[in-house]
Amino acid sequence: MRLERDCIGELPVPDDALYGIHSLRAVRNFPITEERVNPVMIESYLQIKKAAAMANVEAKTLDKQKGAFIVAAVNQLLFSKDYRSIIVPAIQGGAGTSTNMNVNEVVAHLASRLSGRDGHQPLMIHPNDDVNQSQSTNDTYPTAGKMAMLKLISPLETALTELIDALDAKAAAYRDAIKVGRTQLQDAVPTTFGRSFRAYRSLFSRDLSRIKDVKRTLAEVNLGGTAIGTGINTTSTYQRRVVPILNQLSHLSLTTAGDLVDATQNSDAYVAFSGVLRALAVDLSKFSNDLRLLSSGPQAGLNELQLPKVQAGSSIMPGKVNPVIPEVVNQVAFEVIGHDTTVTLAAEAGQLELNAFEPIMFKSILTSETHLTKAIKTLVVNCINEMTANVDGCRDEVERSTISATVLSPYLGYEKTTSLIKEAAAKHLSVRRLVKSRHLLADELIDQLFSPASLTHQAPADKMLGDLTATAHH
Amino acid sequence: MRLERDCIGELPVPDDALYGIHSLRAVRNFPITEERVNPVMIESYLQIKKAAAMANVEAKTLDKQKGAFIVAAVNQLLFSKDYRSIIVPAIQGGAGTSTNMNVNEVVAHLASRLSGRDGHQPLMIHPNDDVNQSQSTNDTYPTAGKMAMLKLISPLETALTELIDALDAKAAAYRDAIKVGRTQLQDAVPTTFGRSFRAYRSLFSRDLSRIKDVKRTLAEVNLGGTAIGTGINTTSTYQRRVVPILNQLSHLSLTTAGDLVDATQNSDAYVAFSGVLRALAVDLSKFSNDLRLLSSGPQAGLNELQLPKVQAGSSIMPGKVNPVIPEVVNQVAFEVIGHDTTVTLAAEAGQLELNAFEPIMFKSILTSETHLTKAIKTLVVNCINEMTANVDGCRDEVERSTISATVLSPYLGYEKTTSLIKEAAAKHLSVRRLVKSRHLLADELIDQLFSPASLTHQAPADKMLGDLTATAHH
Amino acid sequence: MRLERDCIGELPVPDDALYGIHSLRAVRNFPITEERVNPVMIESYLQIKKAAAMANVEAKTLDKQKGAFIVAAVNQLLFSKDYRSIIVPAIQGGAGTSTNMNVNEVVAHLASRLSGRDGHQPLMIHPNDDVNQSQSTNDTYPTAGKMAMLKLISPLETALTELIDALDAKAAAYRDAIKVGRTQLQDAVPTTFGRSFRAYRSLFSRDLSRIKDVKRTLAEVNLGGTAIGTGINTTSTYQRRVVPILNQLSHLSLTTAGDLVDATQNSDAYVAFSGVLRALAVDLSKFSNDLRLLSSGPQAGLNELQLPKVQAGSSIMPGKVNPVIPEVVNQVAFEVIGHDTTVTLAAEAGQLELNAFEPIMFKSILTSETHLTKAIKTLVVNCINEMTANVDGCRDEVERSTISATVLSPYLGYEKTTSLIKEAAAKHLSVRRLVKSRHLLADELIDQLFSPASLTHQAPADKMLGDLTATAHH
Amino acid sequence: MRLERDCIGELPVPDDALYGIHSLRAVRNFPITEERVNPVMIESYLQIKKAAAMANVEAKTLDKQKGAFIVAAVNQLLFSKDYRSIIVPAIQGGAGTSTNMNVNEVVAHLASRLSGRDGHQPLMIHPNDDVNQSQSTNDTYPTAGKMAMLKLISPLETALTELIDALDAKAAAYRDAIKVGRTQLQDAVPTTFGRSFRAYRSLFSRDLSRIKDVKRTLAEVNLGGTAIGTGINTTSTYQRRVVPILNQLSHLSLTTAGDLVDATQNSDAYVAFSGVLRALAVDLSKFSNDLRLLSSGPQAGLNELQLPKVQAGSSIMPGKVNPVIPEVVNQVAFEVIGHDTTVTLAAEAGQLELNAFEPIMFKSILTSETHLTKAIKTLVVNCINEMTANVDGCRDEVERSTISATVLSPYLGYEKTTSLIKEAAAKHLSVRRLVKSRHLLADELIDQLFSPASLTHQAPADKMLGDLTATAHH
Repeated sequence: MRLERDCIGELPVPDDALYGIHSLRAVRNFPITEERVNPVMIESYLQIKKAAAMANVEAKTLDKQKGAFIVAAVNQLLFSKDYRSIIVPAIQGGAGTSTNMNVNEVVAHLASRLSGRDGHQPLMIHPNDDVNQSQSTNDTYPTAGKMAMLKLISPLETALTELIDALDAKAAAYRDAIKVGRTQLQDAVPTTFGRSFRAYRSLFSRDLSRIKDVKRTLAEVNLGGTAIGTGINTTSTYQRRVVPILNQLSHLSLTTAGDLVDATQNSDAYVAFSGVLRALAVDLSKFSNDLRLLSSGPQAGLNELQLPKVQAGSSIMPGKVNPVIPEVVNQVAFEVIGHDTTVTLAAEAGQLELNAFEPIMFKSILTSETHLTKAIKTLVVNCINEMTANVDGCRDEVERSTISATVLSPYLGYEKTTSLIKEAAAKHLSVRRLVKSRHLLADELIDQLFSPASLTHQAPADKMLGDLTATAHH
Repeated sequence: MRLERDCIGELPVPDDALYGIHSLRAVRNFPITEERVNPVMIESYLQIKKAAAMANVEAKTLDKQKGAFIVAAVNQLLFSKDYRSIIVPAIQGGAGTSTNMNVNEVVAHLASRLSGRDGHQPLMIHPNDDVNQSQSTNDTYPTAGKMAMLKLISPLETALTELIDALDAKAAAYRDAIKVGRTQLQDAVPTTFGRSFRAYRSLFSRDLSRIKDVKRTLAEVNLGGTAIGTGINTTSTYQRRVVPILNQLSHLSLTTAGDLVDATQNSDAYVAFSGVLRALAVDLSKFSNDLRLLSSGPQAGLNELQLPKVQAGSSIMPGKVNPVIPEVVNQVAFEVIGHDTTVTLAAEAGQLELNAFEPIMFKSILTSETHLTKAIKTLVVNCINEMTANVDGCRDEVERSTISATVLSPYLGYEKTTSLIKEAAAKHLSVRRLVKSRHLLADELIDQLFSPASLTHQAPADKMLGDLTATAHH
Repeated sequence: MRLERDCIGELPVPDDALYGIHSLRAVRNFPITEERVNPVMIESYLQIKKAAAMANVEAKTLDKQKGAFIVAAVNQLLFSKDYRSIIVPAIQGGAGTSTNMNVNEVVAHLASRLSGRDGHQPLMIHPNDDVNQSQSTNDTYPTAGKMAMLKLISPLETALTELIDALDAKAAAYRDAIKVGRTQLQDAVPTTFGRSFRAYRSLFSRDLSRIKDVKRTLAEVNLGGTAIGTGINTTSTYQRRVVPILNQLSHLSLTTAGDLVDATQNSDAYVAFSGVLRALAVDLSKFSNDLRLLSSGPQAGLNELQLPKVQAGSSIMPGKVNPVIPEVVNQVAFEVIGHDTTVTLAAEAGQLELNAFEPIMFKSILTSETHLTKAIKTLVVNCINEMTANVDGCRDEVERSTISATVLSPYLGYEKTTSLIKEAAAKHLSVRRLVKSRHLLADELIDQLFSPASLTHQAPADKMLGDLTATAHH
Repeated sequence: MRLERDCIGELPVPDDALYGIHSLRAVRNFPITEERVNPVMIESYLQIKKAAAMANVEAKTLDKQKGAFIVAAVNQLLFSKDYRSIIVPAIQGGAGTSTNMNVNEVVAHLASRLSGRDGHQPLMIHPNDDVNQSQSTNDTYPTAGKMAMLKLISPLETALTELIDALDAKAAAYRDAIKVGRTQLQDAVPTTFGRSFRAYRSLFSRDLSRIKDVKRTLAEVNLGGTAIGTGINTTSTYQRRVVPILNQLSHLSLTTAGDLVDATQNSDAYVAFSGVLRALAVDLSKFSNDLRLLSSGPQAGLNELQLPKVQAGSSIMPGKVNPVIPEVVNQVAFEVIGHDTTVTLAAEAGQLELNAFEPIMFKSILTSETHLTKAIKTLVVNCINEMTANVDGCRDEVERSTISATVLSPYLGYEKTTSLIKEAAAKHLSVRRLVKSRHLLADELIDQLFSPASLTHQAPADKMLGDLTATAHH
């Protein structure tokens, strides 16, 4: 064990550990969860350290050779993706300082090792003076957080696009399959599966577009602002260079925020992004609810959709199969909405020049992104793609539906139509037949009105019959 | 107009106004909503003023005659229920000071008038020195808030009891009406309407009992604690007497909190109560969801329940009727859950010796209580009482259900039963018939197993058939 | 009393009432709150009725004369702004049908009266066949809701702009007033009031821009979709004309949604808008928290800001003045976040072709908009405008602050600087003096580093001293 | 690999795997999180399987020898605590069926192995017919969930008790240390650290008592209700015996719910428990906020408390130390409140005979319990125990405070006292001196009133001075 010191005192650190005393203290102080910092966040942090070292070398405030060892150390960590030395837990006090300190220590130790330094000599590369040069937790941590959020948006966009495509395919496959519409769970005028699937498609396209929109805000980083956004202890060269270099390393399109003080203390970008994820969660949950409802049965339910059977549904009821994929999507949605509450509370709790509660915001948001991505994927692969519609049954239901008589209303009036529907329902007659038997409208018009195209308004009556409309109107 | 002064400056007040400068300032400072302070809260505040005056007279710190005029003024206000002089809005900064000041001013003016004082003489009864004697906003405001919450619990308990009774009546009426059970919206083993209604009854009985439990905490008041719970500027006589007198006046059973400092600064009682209301809201929403689901149709839905028709359901679809009563209950539930979020945020924001955000907590909770009460009432009167079950249709559905074959599982095993169910479903046969045709079990046992009593386990097979069970077991 | 009929039965309606049986039923069914439908919503609904009548006349499905009477009736209602005949409560079941029916009935009655019809004759203008022609609640109600939201955005934008301007003015007035920064409530490197106020300005500018962005989505309406978005019972002329006419009448820039089925059933636009309002609420709450913190005192607090005194703060503590304006803003923020929860729940609960819970969403959002607008206004007028900073006291605090020694770190290193700070703190010395006494750096550099411009990084050391930086670097 | 079949089809399973096809399907269907089912939940599930086997043997529906092998298998798993064969993820669709199936498969395989069965023979002990006999997921899963919640309450109670004791010790240590009180962050009448710490103690004692209260509800389990609470496929012997046996095995005090149908479908117990955890979270957050506020500084803050220094606070600002322990507690509180939102949404989404969303509820609640326990522990050990108060500084602040003059109000009146305070503040005089100089009250009384005991009302003036009070009153 080697003995390390900080402003609090001394602590023994395992000899071969890349981390140091600051990391160890964090592990002791925050024994809340065994979950560690998100690896995409660590990767982003390492990219920042590399960009900072390169910018500091350019600014001549960091020795060239030291800079090279820092870059080499970061490269080695990024290549191996072995982040086991980042030991601090995901939930931590201190506004991310422990994560930054841990990264600084690991990079400094590894860089010093690469420089040929023996484990018992003092570090040649200093965690704070060199690795953290021109930086503070308060600008690197939110920058790394936003980078991670942006990186995790890509797979989410891919998944959403797959969902949209899958819905497109279903809309095409069932384009004209007529079915009863339902408002307030009561039978309403008919629609088609094509229109239903297209409506979900439109919905998720809007979600996708909201996600694309929010990326611009997330890309505004406060790197260069250091402690409170004033940029203390940075050079103008560093300020000018660090973000462009970081973009080269990360293939992101980050921009330096116009007001670094603001960007350091305010969390509205996280609230806004979390709000967008929450909107997606709400939409996924509504969609899952509909899937579960439409596939209810098999005998005593609506039975309009058949979801693929993916596992036995009951340990006691043989042969039962449940809509487990939509169910897991619902649960992810509820989780994401809960995370959004957490983000809201944490954002509101920010004080003065900093929000100390970024760790729980970042953990919540990054988890939401990942879970949403995975939930959508299983929804597409294990449910939507193989789902089929009960075309015949649904068409028969439209036939039986009295509410379709709504099409008569412009011709017979709301009240007359109401009484016809009540009469038909009481006598178990079809309204169409009843209207014909009463000779209330020309048979031709009646048949046109009750045609699928008219019922679903794909060919409105005024187009089909021209002047008839005006003529027939009571 | 008369000119009044406070520590800020001067303001003209309408000559005949009972309120004074402090009330006027609040109206100007907080022009957020036109909604005023809840009348039950004002009533409670007036009772506090009366009790305090009586206790102060006993303690000899308030002149007897002044005390009598204060009491007379309060009595007049309580009798008339005319609270138009309490002009401060429900949403206000200042931790309730404006409400207390307004009440003090109105009582002082009215008491001074009753004393024969002319409108242009200085007040004989002083709002702060006399009406507010031995009190602070910080003890009277939360006390009045808790009193109002307790008073509004009574009608809520009544409404809940009526709901429980209505469900009891339905459970009795449909005691043995068998129906398909559903888990995860898929057909499951049968149950009866009796059991379903009884389950809701059990649920709401638990809500009622949670509400009863929470009353004890709400009854602990910090009256006597004054500014920060230390009881500064009170006498021991006042401290001893004020709550007992208040109980006599209000017919409540308030107790003085054991730790007045704690009771002045902490809002956990509100969070806990709001949590209980939220639990009730969740339960009402789940129940309403079930009602809407079971009454879906009339043709293309489950159609197991018929809710009374209470209004036309559509401006365009003639004859459509919707489950509007459960729908309004759902919405009240969502509102109450939103209020609960507000209460949580406001409670968390309390700092040091006081929570400044009591006004929004009280407004939210009192509204939740009132809306829940009214929602339950309309649910009972306009929905539950006249609701009927589709007994025949449901029994037929049970007959058709293959999942009822679960009763065979202990005899034939899970896997064999699974394959029988699949076969029956594929061949559109009843499982019962299929099992009989295969002679897998004695016909007598089969009939017993598929009897309603057995399917709903009101008479378990082991009781019906004795040793048969053991014998038959695969 | 006149007797009216609907599909449920008969009901007596006051003879002179403009509303009819459907409105009355709603009042009986939904006795939850006395709060009525938001007047901006009613105004929008009336504009829709007028636009629809005009489009229907163009389409020749509505008699010209009838159309003229409908338009006249709407005009009269809009001009008088007397909406007392819209009696249905704000919280209602039925997805808004009661509101639509109420508007239809009132317009129909008034139009019939204008036509010279006697009160006892049947209506010449029919609520459903004429006033509601080509419409459904399911397209008019959300359209009216979105119109109301858009209209209430204007005053919100104005208020936000005033807040931004007020902060701008403060930022200019206190441009160089140095003060201690604070991260995690602990002393940090200095900043200026100018930068602080500018940071809030930047924050609220982003809120303003989010609000502007969301308007595009809100402007997409489903008018023309009727019952479920298929547009049943409309003509193509109506479909083409109704939104343009409505834009002329309302001076809004509504567009017809690309997918009317989607736009009828999905509520993501409300969730997104509510999320934007929530983000603003979070930001206002954070800002209010900061104001309250910085103005804490007057003796035992931070005492950096002095808020204008707007009312006496205590009924018991003489001379106490509290930050009541920020406090009321906090409370409005908590209320808005609660409303956002309600909206989320209601949106998630939508099923199939419709969301039945729009009434509570609309009520929540419209109230949030109004309360936010009013809260911001009182914040600007009664707080920000007259607020002053304690310039001298804050400058003195910076002088005393040991953490300013952070500027030494690039020259002396993190560890050496740490030990100097600890020593200075222990000896109650200024770090600046200590460093000079030790001759650790040139006096000139030390003075430069500790100058306000350097401490707040308005003139970074590398610019001030040129090569010195590189030279001095350890 | 061995080939296993279910009602969906076939799947190869690793030869040595204890789990089977149902577990594998779940892993494929729910690739959301790598987090597995909480081990306390698995332990509880195993105890249920053992109790059920024992009860089934008693009921003679399970072969004695099979029962013995099941018990032995469970014992082995519980003893080893090796739950690696329970491979299903924590977030899963299917209402817990996958967890139950996984446990059934593992126990069945292990029991079969213990029976001497060769890996390629069919299982002697069947997962469903034997291990799951008389059970359903729908009764075992919630029972296991409640058991796990109850088990995790014990360490939470311990941690809370330690917090209460730590606060008690601080209250005793600083019993009479006077300090300025603060309401609405403005200086208020004085209090003592003793009273402050006692108030937190009172608060957390109430949290402890709420937790104790909720245990009774959690202990009511629906074991024996099987699929939907009707108890289908159970014997009366099993029903009578299984819970008592389970209590013996688990050392819990479970009771069979009075209405098993209700207990199977309703989730109010989880909402109520989550609400209690949320109340605790709110209280911990408020307490942490106060700690951070009172320890703000060290120079430009309130500086009333000194929290132990547990780690360096900044990567850039040398010597900075932050309140990281309260900060992590805040974050856990925000997380718990977020979990509570998730639980609320999931509970509300339950439908008819079952709530399919128990997995996310259980995950959320169990995590909340664990994190709260750990957060409280680090708060006690790393913060409260070593925290000290700035006794002298606080006493000096009381001396300087003008608001202490509130004690004069009963003698001089609210208005006179207000003007004295304003005058003293303007002239930077002490009010006490000013009052003496004016001879407004006897010097003896003035000194008594301004004594610490009087200011904090530990010895009220009326007790100290007897008749003086009445005499002096204006």
